[in-house]
Amino acid sequence: MSNYRPRLLRVNLSTGACQEEDIPEKIVIDFIGGRGFGIKYLYDELQPGIDPLGPDNKLIFSIGPLAGVGALSTSRWLVTSKSPLTGTYFRGSGGANFGAWMRFAGFDVIIVEGAAKKPVYILIEDGRCEIKDGGNLWGKNTIETQKLLKETHGNQASIACIGPGAERFIRFAGIMNERRGVGRGGLGTVMASKKLKAITIKPARKTKVTSKEFEALRREAVAALREHPFLMPVFSKGGSTVSVGLSNAMGLYPTRNFREGTLGGWEEVSAERYAALKEGDNACYGCIVHCGNLLRVKEGPYAGATSEGPDYETIGAFTGTFASNDIATTIVADSFCDQMGLDTMTAGNSIGFAFELYEKGIITKEDTGGLELTWGNHEAALELLKMIANREGLGDILAEGTKMAAERIGKGAADYAMHVKGLELPLYDPRGAKWHGLNYITSPMGANHNLGYGIQEMFNNPYPRPVDRFAEEGYAGVVKFNQDLTAGIELGILCTFVSTSQVPPLPLFCKMLASVTDIPQFSVSSLFLVGERIWNLERLFNTREGFGRKDDAYPKRFTTEPLKKAGPSEGAIIRNPEGMLDQYYAVRGWDHEGVPTAEKLMSLGLKE
Amino acid sequence: MSNYRPRLLRVNLSTGACQEEDIPEKIVIDFIGGRGFGIKYLYDELQPGIDPLGPDNKLIFSIGPLAGVGALSTSRWLVTSKSPLTGTYFRGSGGANFGAWMRFAGFDVIIVEGAAKKPVYILIEDGRCEIKDGGNLWGKNTIETQKLLKETHGNQASIACIGPGAERFIRFAGIMNERRGVGRGGLGTVMASKKLKAITIKPARKTKVTSKEFEALRREAVAALREHPFLMPVFSKGGSTVSVGLSNAMGLYPTRNFREGTLGGWEEVSAERYAALKEGDNACYGCIVHCGNLLRVKEGPYAGATSEGPDYETIGAFTGTFASNDIATTIVADSFCDQMGLDTMTAGNSIGFAFELYEKGIITKEDTGGLELTWGNHEAALELLKMIANREGLGDILAEGTKMAAERIGKGAADYAMHVKGLELPLYDPRGAKWHGLNYITSPMGANHNLGYGIQEMFNNPYPRPVDRFAEEGYAGVVKFNQDLTAGIELGILCTFVSTSQVPPLPLFCKMLASVTDIPQFSVSSLFLVGERIWNLERLFNTREGFGRKDDAYPKRFTTEPLKKAGPSEGAIIRNPEGMLDQYYAVRGWDHEGVPTAEKLMSLGLKE
Repeated sequence: MSNYRPRLLRVNLSTGACQEEDIPEKIVIDFIGGRGFGIKYLYDELQPGIDPLGPDNKLIFSIGPLAGVGALSTSRWLVTSKSPLTGTYFRGSGGANFGAWMRFAGFDVIIVEGAAKKPVYILIEDGRCEIKDGGNLWGKNTIETQKLLKETHGNQASIACIGPGAERFIRFAGIMNERRGVGRGGLGTVMASKKLKAITIKPARKTKVTSKEFEALRREAVAALREHPFLMPVFSKGGSTVSVGLSNAMGLYPTRNFREGTLGGWEEVSAERYAALKEGDNACYGCIVHCGNLLRVKEGPYAGATSEGPDYETIGAFTGTFASNDIATTIVADSFCDQMGLDTMTAGNSIGFAFELYEKGIITKEDTGGLELTWGNHEAALELLKMIANREGLGDILAEGTKMAAERIGKGAADYAMHVKGLELPLYDPRGAKWHGLNYITSPMGANHNLGYGIQEMFNNPYPRPVDRFAEEGYAGVVKFNQDLTAGIELGILCTFVSTSQVPPLPLFCKMLASVTDIPQFSVSSLFLVGERIWNLERLFNTREGFGRKDDAYPKRFTTEPLKKAGPSEGAIIRNPEGMLDQYYAVRGWDHEGVPTAEKLMSLGLKE
Repeated sequence: MSNYRPRLLRVNLSTGACQEEDIPEKIVIDFIGGRGFGIKYLYDELQPGIDPLGPDNKLIFSIGPLAGVGALSTSRWLVTSKSPLTGTYFRGSGGANFGAWMRFAGFDVIIVEGAAKKPVYILIEDGRCEIKDGGNLWGKNTIETQKLLKETHGNQASIACIGPGAERFIRFAGIMNERRGVGRGGLGTVMASKKLKAITIKPARKTKVTSKEFEALRREAVAALREHPFLMPVFSKGGSTVSVGLSNAMGLYPTRNFREGTLGGWEEVSAERYAALKEGDNACYGCIVHCGNLLRVKEGPYAGATSEGPDYETIGAFTGTFASNDIATTIVADSFCDQMGLDTMTAGNSIGFAFELYEKGIITKEDTGGLELTWGNHEAALELLKMIANREGLGDILAEGTKMAAERIGKGAADYAMHVKGLELPLYDPRGAKWHGLNYITSPMGANHNLGYGIQEMFNNPYPRPVDRFAEEGYAGVVKFNQDLTAGIELGILCTFVSTSQVPPLPLFCKMLASVTDIPQFSVSSLFLVGERIWNLERLFNTREGFGRKDDAYPKRFTTEPLKKAGPSEGAIIRNPEGMLDQYYAVRGWDHEGVPTAEKLMSLGLKE
């Protein structure tokens, strides 16, 4: 009925079989693409209780109908799996060009299942799929791996690969494509568990949607982006580094492992300072924003070090958490994590966690191999990062993530492990952004900032209405709105940076989706409906795994310690998290335990 | 994009203009038909604050895409307007054949606006519309009116008309088609205010959907109806009279103006007793259930009296409310109301109200013109009914409905006026069916039983899950489900009697809608989405008129007096109506005052 005929490639690494499949029409209509396909296949194909690092886990790469068709900022790709860090549903989101290359290869979904006996990579070329020997790649970092594969398959290849971090089963290793990563949740570790070093796509054909209607919509979207008062004039210049000043001014910049809300001397890591180190920029496929900063350290012991980045979250993770304001450290750490294929956010948070344990005497110099983890000691932080990457000493424990590390360390360490469901916190203190914070505890994959970003609180954006960031009553509906909207946006898959600026405007984005999917009735409310369907199916996945209300909880600190040194957020604390959860479950149509009710599932078409 | 091209006929009685219009594609896709078109046009075209009985009010007749196309029980027609009884949005639902005839005439919507200077009727014949002189019809009852118009235009005409009740501006006069009425809310009175006696449709052509796909679905629906364990074996035999026994057994049968829950001697008005008086049956167009009972009183003072009906609600209104169990009275009253064009439910409730005022001494024999309104005095009840129809004495006051009548009478009469927002209560006591009861206070048109019927409580039907009818926590989501579902069903427009039995099954019903509208993606979740959109737009209409939380309230009795003589419902009382409202508003995504939030409206496509 629709001309949109997404296709699926299934690669079984145990048997070596590659198989192409149509995606059933009912799935296409109900889930559209991207994140929808990810959870639908994961939910349907994974048995509950399987080991995330065993052969029964699957990796589902997916793109949306707008990938690689000429629209701006809509070629992101997702990886969906069961996370070894959290044990929950997880989806990572990647930039660069792998998404567009999936479109060119003709596959909307690639499911990788089983596990190889020895290192391999998948080659997709001219519509064929091959499983190739990856022995020579194993052990190589993500830069070298991509370089080697391009030497073999040409510079036009796009490669999603893992680094040594994943191979060492560090639970927060990601997947890299160019210098952009699917960072969080250990999806690279899942890939390593399958002995899959990389997926290489050599473009076969370039698909181009050429309908006049779509072209007009595309132009309208480009104009909206160009005319936006923030995206090109500000964001394009420095990317998310601009948030450092914003977050410190609000008193939300996590400092000393989330004890304080402003970093002394934060100006040293401000957007201006990064701008001074900028030598160029980089963009994802089909994006004119170019938010990637190519930076070079100019002086000091790390002079000459370069990175594409760091972005705001990485800066936060490698400064405030251990009370450093050393800009060079952030660049070195960023580059190192990219090469090793590690999640900067979990890595930096884990280091801040270790610093606090050291202060409290829970760990000592004996544990740290002599490192003095005193606040601000950024050299020690970088050393500890290397120990994590090499699984040496304390690093071997931290390589499990703060939740498991705290369990192993004992002695009350868990009180200082800043995570939800095992995923370390994003770099905005939820005590001063309570509704954004409600995402951290209700997201299906632990503390994540990108599944329902609280633009209302962070940017005073009254969309769809203003939110009081300190209130604990009245805004659960906005949280649901942000979450369902994001799930809908990730059908596209539009970049969060532009979508949270309402570019393109939602009705236009929906028209673009309607045009390329040939589902003419697809409207804003369709997007919210599919988004809500996705959110509920993700929740059902976790419910099936045994997660529930008890797991929708903050680290102890946020409900017991007022935020200090936090300017306008001074003294903020989460007083009634259960009350906020009650409001949230009610507006979601979930029961008191956070389980979607029969009526909610039926009305979403998830139950007959 | 879709082959479904519904058309609208606009008749302006002030100017005499008849005009055909396309319904814009956006409205078609967002609102589909029936109830959707009703509220969409009413919301867009009515200015807030207009007098329901002035020329600025409109009457919107609408059908759904399944009317007159051969599907079973889907040819109901709706009338949407601002009610003179409640001042709210109102929609009445009619059976018989007028809905199918609208389809044959080629109009999905007929909007009547303005007001004529002298009595007229509208004739729609061979695709033409004429406003004809109705002087000779004015004053005639609904039987005579239809007879006269058929003499002029032929027996194949279908006529929707008003009776003398509406002409006398009784605020609860309805619109009759054959012997089925659009009873509630005074929509006939609106028609009278426009001096419109009738709309007569002479079928021009018979539309028939002949696609093989639709034919297969239609057959499946017929089979589902034939195989249903209740509908043909039980319901078809006696219609809703079966509920008398059920309701008394549950202790929900309103007795003595809702003081008690069981009527002494209710067996005299049981399904069996009505069956004994049955001489035949009657069906709406395209329905094999034939739930209309053709009854004749066999003996006593009313021997020879006949009626098509009464149904359960009418039986309840003319027995328990004033503590009578006289079966003949119910038949005589039913027939009288049909002829006068009066709502039996409001009429009977008003009489029960008067009986209690009499008992309390708030009114006396002086007010009643000598009638002794003592419990069980059914002769007096029938006399009072005639006084209402003739607007004589106390009847003239009761003709305004219990809410306005209580205001005029004063002396605490309002405590005994059993209504919500001015609409008198259906005949199930909400104290023993609390979630069904939540409909009464949250429905956009006052106490109505058919906008979200609580089958879970009334029939122990665990669809979508069982409900504890005495609980005050945990089922607001089921109420929302029932309401959104009903609004979705009324796109069809499927009869409530079969739809509440899940016939045809919802997925099949949606496939039928998808087939005839040529919106192939139309699914169960689409139905709930459109249903929720409708419900919210209806709420917005009322919000614009000044209604809010304060108006979502029960009559005092239900929160202050335990239900007596009520068997398993003995002692039931509504303890925390505000708490139930809180739950309901939360699950609806409305704010504390019951106003839909910006995020809810945006996600429903009701706000950009």
